[in-house]
Amino acid sequence: MTQIKNAENVRLFALNSNRPLAESIASRIGLPLSKASISHFADGEIKITIDESVRGCEVYVVQSVSDPVNTNLMELLIMVDALRRASAAKINVVMPYYGYARQDRKARSREPITAKLIANLLEMDQIDRLVTIDLHAAQVQGFFDIPVDHLQATSLFASYCEQHGLTGDDVVVVSPDHAGVSLARKFAEHIKAPIAIVDNRVDEVRERTKQEVPEYVIGDVKDRTAIVVDDIVDTGIRMKLSAAALEKFGAKKIYGIATHAVLSGDAVNTLENSGLEKMIVTDTINLPEEKCFSKLVRLSVADLLAEAMVRIHNHQSIDTLFNHK
Amino acid sequence: MTQIKNAENVRLFALNSNRPLAESIASRIGLPLSKASISHFADGEIKITIDESVRGCEVYVVQSVSDPVNTNLMELLIMVDALRRASAAKINVVMPYYGYARQDRKARSREPITAKLIANLLEMDQIDRLVTIDLHAAQVQGFFDIPVDHLQATSLFASYCEQHGLTGDDVVVVSPDHAGVSLARKFAEHIKAPIAIVDNRVDEVRERTKQEVPEYVIGDVKDRTAIVVDDIVDTGIRMKLSAAALEKFGAKKIYGIATHAVLSGDAVNTLENSGLEKMIVTDTINLPEEKCFSKLVRLSVADLLAEAMVRIHNHQSIDTLFNHK
Amino acid sequence: MTQIKNAENVRLFALNSNRPLAESIASRIGLPLSKASISHFADGEIKITIDESVRGCEVYVVQSVSDPVNTNLMELLIMVDALRRASAAKINVVMPYYGYARQDRKARSREPITAKLIANLLEMDQIDRLVTIDLHAAQVQGFFDIPVDHLQATSLFASYCEQHGLTGDDVVVVSPDHAGVSLARKFAEHIKAPIAIVDNRVDEVRERTKQEVPEYVIGDVKDRTAIVVDDIVDTGIRMKLSAAALEKFGAKKIYGIATHAVLSGDAVNTLENSGLEKMIVTDTINLPEEKCFSKLVRLSVADLLAEAMVRIHNHQSIDTLFNHK
Amino acid sequence: MTQIKNAENVRLFALNSNRPLAESIASRIGLPLSKASISHFADGEIKITIDESVRGCEVYVVQSVSDPVNTNLMELLIMVDALRRASAAKINVVMPYYGYARQDRKARSREPITAKLIANLLEMDQIDRLVTIDLHAAQVQGFFDIPVDHLQATSLFASYCEQHGLTGDDVVVVSPDHAGVSLARKFAEHIKAPIAIVDNRVDEVRERTKQEVPEYVIGDVKDRTAIVVDDIVDTGIRMKLSAAALEKFGAKKIYGIATHAVLSGDAVNTLENSGLEKMIVTDTINLPEEKCFSKLVRLSVADLLAEAMVRIHNHQSIDTLFNHK
Amino acid sequence: MTQIKNAENVRLFALNSNRPLAESIASRIGLPLSKASISHFADGEIKITIDESVRGCEVYVVQSVSDPVNTNLMELLIMVDALRRASAAKINVVMPYYGYARQDRKARSREPITAKLIANLLEMDQIDRLVTIDLHAAQVQGFFDIPVDHLQATSLFASYCEQHGLTGDDVVVVSPDHAGVSLARKFAEHIKAPIAIVDNRVDEVRERTKQEVPEYVIGDVKDRTAIVVDDIVDTGIRMKLSAAALEKFGAKKIYGIATHAVLSGDAVNTLENSGLEKMIVTDTINLPEEKCFSKLVRLSVADLLAEAMVRIHNHQSIDTLFNHK
Amino acid sequence: MTQIKNAENVRLFALNSNRPLAESIASRIGLPLSKASISHFADGEIKITIDESVRGCEVYVVQSVSDPVNTNLMELLIMVDALRRASAAKINVVMPYYGYARQDRKARSREPITAKLIANLLEMDQIDRLVTIDLHAAQVQGFFDIPVDHLQATSLFASYCEQHGLTGDDVVVVSPDHAGVSLARKFAEHIKAPIAIVDNRVDEVRERTKQEVPEYVIGDVKDRTAIVVDDIVDTGIRMKLSAAALEKFGAKKIYGIATHAVLSGDAVNTLENSGLEKMIVTDTINLPEEKCFSKLVRLSVADLLAEAMVRIHNHQSIDTLFNHK
Repeated sequence: MTQIKNAENVRLFALNSNRPLAESIASRIGLPLSKASISHFADGEIKITIDESVRGCEVYVVQSVSDPVNTNLMELLIMVDALRRASAAKINVVMPYYGYARQDRKARSREPITAKLIANLLEMDQIDRLVTIDLHAAQVQGFFDIPVDHLQATSLFASYCEQHGLTGDDVVVVSPDHAGVSLARKFAEHIKAPIAIVDNRVDEVRERTKQEVPEYVIGDVKDRTAIVVDDIVDTGIRMKLSAAALEKFGAKKIYGIATHAVLSGDAVNTLENSGLEKMIVTDTINLPEEKCFSKLVRLSVADLLAEAMVRIHNHQSIDTLFNHK
Repeated sequence: MTQIKNAENVRLFALNSNRPLAESIASRIGLPLSKASISHFADGEIKITIDESVRGCEVYVVQSVSDPVNTNLMELLIMVDALRRASAAKINVVMPYYGYARQDRKARSREPITAKLIANLLEMDQIDRLVTIDLHAAQVQGFFDIPVDHLQATSLFASYCEQHGLTGDDVVVVSPDHAGVSLARKFAEHIKAPIAIVDNRVDEVRERTKQEVPEYVIGDVKDRTAIVVDDIVDTGIRMKLSAAALEKFGAKKIYGIATHAVLSGDAVNTLENSGLEKMIVTDTINLPEEKCFSKLVRLSVADLLAEAMVRIHNHQSIDTLFNHK
Repeated sequence: MTQIKNAENVRLFALNSNRPLAESIASRIGLPLSKASISHFADGEIKITIDESVRGCEVYVVQSVSDPVNTNLMELLIMVDALRRASAAKINVVMPYYGYARQDRKARSREPITAKLIANLLEMDQIDRLVTIDLHAAQVQGFFDIPVDHLQATSLFASYCEQHGLTGDDVVVVSPDHAGVSLARKFAEHIKAPIAIVDNRVDEVRERTKQEVPEYVIGDVKDRTAIVVDDIVDTGIRMKLSAAALEKFGAKKIYGIATHAVLSGDAVNTLENSGLEKMIVTDTINLPEEKCFSKLVRLSVADLLAEAMVRIHNHQSIDTLFNHK
Repeated sequence: MTQIKNAENVRLFALNSNRPLAESIASRIGLPLSKASISHFADGEIKITIDESVRGCEVYVVQSVSDPVNTNLMELLIMVDALRRASAAKINVVMPYYGYARQDRKARSREPITAKLIANLLEMDQIDRLVTIDLHAAQVQGFFDIPVDHLQATSLFASYCEQHGLTGDDVVVVSPDHAGVSLARKFAEHIKAPIAIVDNRVDEVRERTKQEVPEYVIGDVKDRTAIVVDDIVDTGIRMKLSAAALEKFGAKKIYGIATHAVLSGDAVNTLENSGLEKMIVTDTINLPEEKCFSKLVRLSVADLLAEAMVRIHNHQSIDTLFNHK
Repeated sequence: MTQIKNAENVRLFALNSNRPLAESIASRIGLPLSKASISHFADGEIKITIDESVRGCEVYVVQSVSDPVNTNLMELLIMVDALRRASAAKINVVMPYYGYARQDRKARSREPITAKLIANLLEMDQIDRLVTIDLHAAQVQGFFDIPVDHLQATSLFASYCEQHGLTGDDVVVVSPDHAGVSLARKFAEHIKAPIAIVDNRVDEVRERTKQEVPEYVIGDVKDRTAIVVDDIVDTGIRMKLSAAALEKFGAKKIYGIATHAVLSGDAVNTLENSGLEKMIVTDTINLPEEKCFSKLVRLSVADLLAEAMVRIHNHQSIDTLFNHK
Repeated sequence: MTQIKNAENVRLFALNSNRPLAESIASRIGLPLSKASISHFADGEIKITIDESVRGCEVYVVQSVSDPVNTNLMELLIMVDALRRASAAKINVVMPYYGYARQDRKARSREPITAKLIANLLEMDQIDRLVTIDLHAAQVQGFFDIPVDHLQATSLFASYCEQHGLTGDDVVVVSPDHAGVSLARKFAEHIKAPIAIVDNRVDEVRERTKQEVPEYVIGDVKDRTAIVVDDIVDTGIRMKLSAAALEKFGAKKIYGIATHAVLSGDAVNTLENSGLEKMIVTDTINLPEEKCFSKLVRLSVADLLAEAMVRIHNHQSIDTLFNHK
C-alpha cells in the first residue's frame, strides 16, 4: 500500500450508501473517516452538517448511487454543495457503483439519457473528479469533462478464478447478451478461455423484466465450465435464464460473475434457485445480511480503491491499477 | 376562466407527486393530460417514456417536491431531460410545493443551501420557467435566473375567513415565530385584523423537532379568535405549541392556516389533538385519505394555477392573480 | 490576532469606497496595502492599473458597494478583471457592505432582483470568495455558488450594550418592522432582553420614503430602555419614526443600532433630531466628517475582518468568529 | 414525401464535404440550396461569407466530418459562427457521418475522448440540433445536451437484402468483432437470420491497422451466405480479414454492409481483392469516382434525411423513420 | 421608412441616458415608448419598475453608456434583469454609444480590458442582441457571441460634407493619430479626398490628457481644407492639437468630425477656442444645452437606428444600412 | 536565463507544427520535451496518446496554428482534452503564431469572427493560459477571459536594425497599409526614425489577393532606407507592392520586417523577386528548407519564449519582457 502524502490536508467522508466499504478504505489508507451528520427530517428531506473544518482540504466522498438511488444521489449532491460552500479545495467523488448507468442512450423515442443527467448534475455541483468502477458502458466517461478515474474489478475476478482452477480451455466465458461480448472477450483473455454468447433476442432495457429462456447459445459450451460475466446483477433473471440456456446446451457447471450486486426485487431467491454454482460479486454496493445468500461470494474493492485514492492524491500514475477496455 | 390559445401546441404532463391536482387543473383548462409512463425499476431507478410527440410544443409539467422528496425531484429532472431531448419548445415546471425551501441559507457553518441546489439542478436541466406557490422565503425567486411566477394562496384563505366571519378586530393574526411576521402582517391586512407573535426563542431549523410550549406571546390575543398563519405545516408541533401558548394567553378560539400540508411524522395526531378548531390548508401537496383528519380543511389551488398557466401561455399579465410579499 | 502564513504570497488591495477601513485591516494583519492606481477619466470612466505583480498571489480586495454604489461596484468588477488577466491565483472580495441587498426579491410584478444581479456579476467576473458582514437577508448567501464567509457584527454591539449597562429585563429590543423580528430576537438573546415590534403596515421597499409614525407597537416597552435594531440605517426615517412610536408607548430611553450606516439624504438631521439617545453603527461604510453627528457612535469591524481574512488565508475555521442568523 | 411548412423561412446550406448528397436532399425537399462562399486562403485558412440573409430563419447545414476531417469540422464550426452572428433563428446541423466517433472513450490512460470534444465544440458554438446517422456508439447521443435526431440506415440495407433474396435461415449475419454484436443482432432481426461473431482478440482501436486473419468464428456459418455488418468501413482490412475467416469456416458467399464508407488508405484495393461479393454502403460520405470500385454498392440516405428534416421542421414526430438500437 | 410588423408584440423602452433620441426613434417607428419607472433611492441605488406587461414581447431598450457611465450601465443591466424575470421573449439592447470601448486591450501590464468586461456583463445578463454605432475598434464585435448589429454614421457625415462642398482633391481627410488611419481612409473614399496623419508620438490611452502640439503631419495638407475624423471627441484636446498642427503645416480651414460627442471636462471651451471651423457630431450621446457651443453641429442617428430596428424586427437584411469598416 | 522552480512538476510538450522551436525552448529552459504520440489514422483523424504521467503537473504545450491550420488547431484541442482528462493541474498553451487572427471582426455582413471562435474553442477546452506573440490586433487578448501573456518581437527586430546600422533619420519606417500605422509608429520609436504609409485604397481582407502597385505613399521616403513593418508576411504580395511603391517614391533601399512568416502560395518567389534587400522574420512558424530563400533572415523567438515561460512558471513578472502596443 502506497503511503499518502500531506495526510493532514485530506478529509475522507462516507455518506449512507456504503459505510462499511468506506471504513474499509479509510483503515487501509490509515486515516479516520471525517465527521458529518447526514440525517433525514420527518418529511424525507436530507439534512447534512459537516462537523469538522474542510477549509483548503482535499476531500474524498465515498457514495454509491445504489438503492435508494434517488436519495443516495441527493445525499451526494447536497454534501458536495455543503463542502464547496465550506471552502474545500478539491472535491473528489468516489462512486463505486454509478447508478442509472444503464440509461446511457435513447433506446426509443422520447426517452431521457439519465446517465448523462447524473453526470451533468455532478458537474454543475462542481465536483473535481470522479473515481468509479466498471461503468456499464465505457462511453459514460465521456459524459464528463472533469477527470474520471475508471477502475476495473477484472483482476479481482481473475484471481478468484485462478485460485479455484477456473481457467484455460475447459472453461468458457459467456456473455449473457450481445452488448456484453466485449466484456466477456476481455475477461476471457485474462483466464485464457474461449467465449460464447447467449443469443437474447430482446434489447437490454426490456430484458430487465423478461422471463423466457433464450433459445440459442452461440459458441461451444458443451462439457465446459461456463462463467457468465456481466457488469451488473440486478433482478438475477438474466443470470438465471443464461444458466438455464447453458445447461440446455450442455455446460458442465455454471458460475456467475458481476461487479455490481444490485440484487433488486426477488433476486436472492432467483439466484439461489438458479443453475449457478456461485454468484461472485464485489462490495461496490452494500448488502444487508438477508441478501447474503449461500451461493454469493463477495470480493472487496477496498484495496483497489484505497490504492487508487492514495496515488491520485500523491499525483502518481494509477495506470498500473487498471486494465482499460 | 380565460381561454387558452393555440391549444394544439400545448402539452400538460403530471408526474407522480400530485396527480389529482394536475387532473383538476387540466379539466379547468379544458385539455387532457398528455401521456407519459413514469414507473420505477425493481432497483428503484426511475423509468420515463413520453408517449406522444412533444416536438415544438409548449410543455407544462406539474410536480410538487413533496415526500418522497428526492424521488419526486429526480422524476422531474429526468422528465425534463426527456422533454428537452424530444425537442419540446419550452418547458414550464409547475411546482405547487417547492421542497427543501426551508434550507435557504447557511444557518450554521458547513451547511448546504439545498434550496439553491434545487434551483441550480433545475436551471442546469434547462427548464424555461417555474410556476410555484408561497415560497418559504421570497428570496428563493432570486435563486433562479429564469422567470419565476410566484403565486400566492392568500386570497383563498382570506375568502375562507370572510365566509366564516373570521375578520376584523375580534380576530388576531398570529405568527408562530419571528421569521413569519411579514406573512402574518400581510394576511392581517386582508382580513383587517391586528397581529401578534409567538415568541419562540430557538431558531427555525432546530424547531422542527422542538417540543416545549413557548413562554411568551407578543401582542394582544386575549378574548380574540386567533389565526396562526404559516406557509408550511410539517410535523404540526409548532402549530400545536402555538395554540397552547395562545390558549394560555387567553385566546378564545384558534385556527391554523398553512399553504403547504406536509404533515410528516405524527402530524395528523398532533394536530387533531391540538387546541386548534380547524387546520386550513391547500392541495399543493397530495394527501392520502388517512391524513385527512376531521379538523383539516382543504382549499384547492387548481383554479389559481389553471388561470395562471393559461395567462402565462397566452402572454397575458398574471399581475392581478397574486399579491407579492 | 492570528499570524498570517505565506505572507509574501498575499496581496491586499483597497479600492476607493472605504480606504480607512482597509488600512486599518492591513495594519492589524501586519501587511502593507498593495499598490494600484484607481482613478477616473474626465468622462467618468474608471481607469485602473495595478502597480505590482500579482502573478500566482492570493489577492484580497476590500470594497463596499456604498454610495456612489454603481461606481464602487464597477471599480470592483474592473479591478477583478485586471487581477484575473494579471494571473492572480485567487481573488477574494471583502465587501463589508453589500449594496443593493434590499432588492433581494420581486416585491411587485416586473421588478428586478438586483441583489442577485450583483451576485451574478461577481461570479461571472470569476471571484473566488466573498467575505461580507450582516447581509440584509441571509438568503443572499444562496445567490452565490462560490464560498461566502458571512460575518456578523452582533458581538460588537452586544459588547457595547454590556459596557453601557444596556442588558436584561429593563431593556427591550425592538424590531422596526415585521421583516426584522428574527434579527431583533437574536440580538435579544445576546443581551438577555425581551423583544417588541413596531407594527408598520406598509412594506419595506415603500417604507424607504414613508413619513408617518406607526400607530402600533406590539410587545411591552413601557418604562423600558428600547434598543431599535436594524441591519441598515439609510434615510434614518424608520429609526426616527420607530423612536417616536416607542416614546408614545412609554419607552424610557431609545437607542438605535444598525450595522451599515448608509445615512443617505437628510439622515444626519433626521437622526440628530430624533428621539434616539445614540445611533450606534459600524465602519463598514466610510463616513465623511460631516456625517459624524453627535449622537453617532462608530464601532470598527477591522478586527473582525482582519482575523477572518487571516484565518481564511491560513485555512483555519472561522466558525468561532460568527453567529449565524 | 411530406410537404415542408413555412418554406420561405428555411435556409438549406451545403458545405464542402458532401455537396452531392446535400443537393439530392434539397431537390427532394423542393428547396434550392442557399448561397454561401466557402473557400480557402492560400495559407489554408477557411473563408466563409453567407450570400443571402438568414435573419430569423431556420437554418439546416449539411456537413459530414469525413476526410479531411479537421478541415470539414472547422468549416462547420466557422459556418455556425457566421450564421449565429447573422441572426439565424435556429441552426440545425445535419451530419450524415460523425467523424472521430470511434474515439468515444479512454481506451488507455491519457487518451482524449475526441468524440466528446466534437460534441463540446458544437454545443459551445450554439447549434440547436444535430441530425445524424448510425453513430458508432449510441451513447454519443448522450455527449450532447441539445436534441439529437439519430437516424438509422438499417431499413435501407434490409430492403436491399430482401430484393436480393438475402434473408432467412440460409443467411447468417456476422459481427466482425465483439463490440458490434448488438448491431448484427438487430440487423438479423430485420432479415430473420441467425448471427455469428468473428472472434477478434485485439481491441478495436488497435485493430484499425491489424493484419492477421482471426482464428475463430463463433456461431454456425457453414454453407450459409454470410453478411458482415459494421457501421464504418475504413481501411477495409477488418472486412477482408472477416471474409477470409468466414471462408475458412465454410461460408458460401460473403457480403459486407457498412453505413459509412470511409475507405481510407488502400481500402479500395483491399476490398476489391477480398473474398466479398459486394460491399454495400451509403452516401453519408462523398466518394470520388476513383473510389467507386466494382464491388461497391451505394444506397442513398437522401430520402431518409429529407423526410426527417421536413418532419423536424414541421414539428412532426420522426419516430416512424428510425429503429433505435 | 419600413413599416414594423406585429407592432402589438413590440415594447420600446428608454432609460435615462438619452431619452430625446429614444423619443425620436419611437416617433419614426410609429410606436409609443413603453412605460417604466427608473428612479434612484436617496443612497444612489437604482430602482426600476416596468409599468406594463412585457410577457412574450420583443423588447428594445435604448441606452448609451455615456457619463455617468457606471450608473447608465447599471441602469441597463438592472432593466434587463427585470425584463428577463418578467418573461420578455427577446431583449434587444440599442446602445448608440458603447462606453469604455477605448479600454479594449491591455496597453500595459496588469490593466483590465473593460470593453470586454462590459460585453461579459451584458451576455451574462442574457441580452439577445446589441445594436450599436461606430465602435472604437471593430474587434469589439468579437467580444460578443450574440449577434451585434454594428451601424455606421459615415454616410451621415458624408452627406453633410457633400452639402457643404467639402469633397474632392481640395480637401484632405486627417487621422489625428496612428490608430485611426483606417477610419480616415474609409471616410476619404466617401468624399473622394486624399488622407494625412497627425504623427502623435504617444499612445492613445496616455493621450487622453496630453497637451503638446504634435510636431509632424504626414501627407500633404498645405492649402487644403482639412477634415479631422475620429470616432470619439472626448476632452477635445486631441482635436484642438490636431487643428494646431494642421494650421502650422498650412491647412486652409479645419473641420472636426466625430460620431460620439463625449465632451468631458473642459471640452466645450477647448473646442470653441480651437482652430476648428465646425465640430460635427451625432446625437448618440445626449448633450445638455450648455454643451451645445456655437461651433457644434449635431446630426441625428434617429433615422438610422429606427430603420435598423424595424428591419431587425421584421427579419429583413440591414446590409444596405451600413458600410463595414 | 532565469532558473525554473519545481522543475519536476513541469511538463513541456511539442505538437507537430513547430517542433524545432519547441526543442530550442526546451533546451534553453533545461528540460526535456515530454513524450506524447501525435499521429494520424489513415482517414485523417488525429490520434494522441500521452506517454508519461501528467497528474498534478503544470503543463506547457507549444503549438502554432500555422498551415495546415485546421489540423494544427485540432491537434491542440485534442491534446488539451487528453491532458485535462489525465488530471494535469494547469494547461498553458504557448502559441507563437495565432492563426485566423486576421478574421477578427465582421468586415462585411454575415461573416464569421473566426479569431474569436478560436478563443472560444480554447476556453471551452479549459486551457488555463495563452502565451502568444504579436497578435494581429491587440484586441484579440480581449477575446479571452483567461490570462493571455502577449509577448512582442519588437526588440528582436530593433536589435537587428541596430546591428546593421538601420536607425535614425536616414531610415523611414513604413506601414504597408492603414491598419498597421500604430505598429510602424511604435517600431519607429525604437529605432528613432520617422514614419510613412503606403496608401492602399482597398481593405485588408480583399488585399490578400490584390496585385496592383499602390499609387500613393504618405510621408517622406525619398533617399531614405525604408523598412516596411508588418506583423504577418503571407503571400508576400503586399510586401512586394509596398517595395515597388517605395522605389517609385525614391526610397534608397528597402527592407521588410514581419514577425510571422506564413509564406503561403508563391510567396517565396514573390519576395525573392521583389525590390526588398532582406525579408526579416522570426521562427514562430516552422519553415521547410525550400522556403528559406536567400533574402530571408530568421531571428529566433526561443529565448523570448523560454524566459517568459520560466518567469510565468516561477510567478515572476514578465513585464520587462514586452513592450505593449
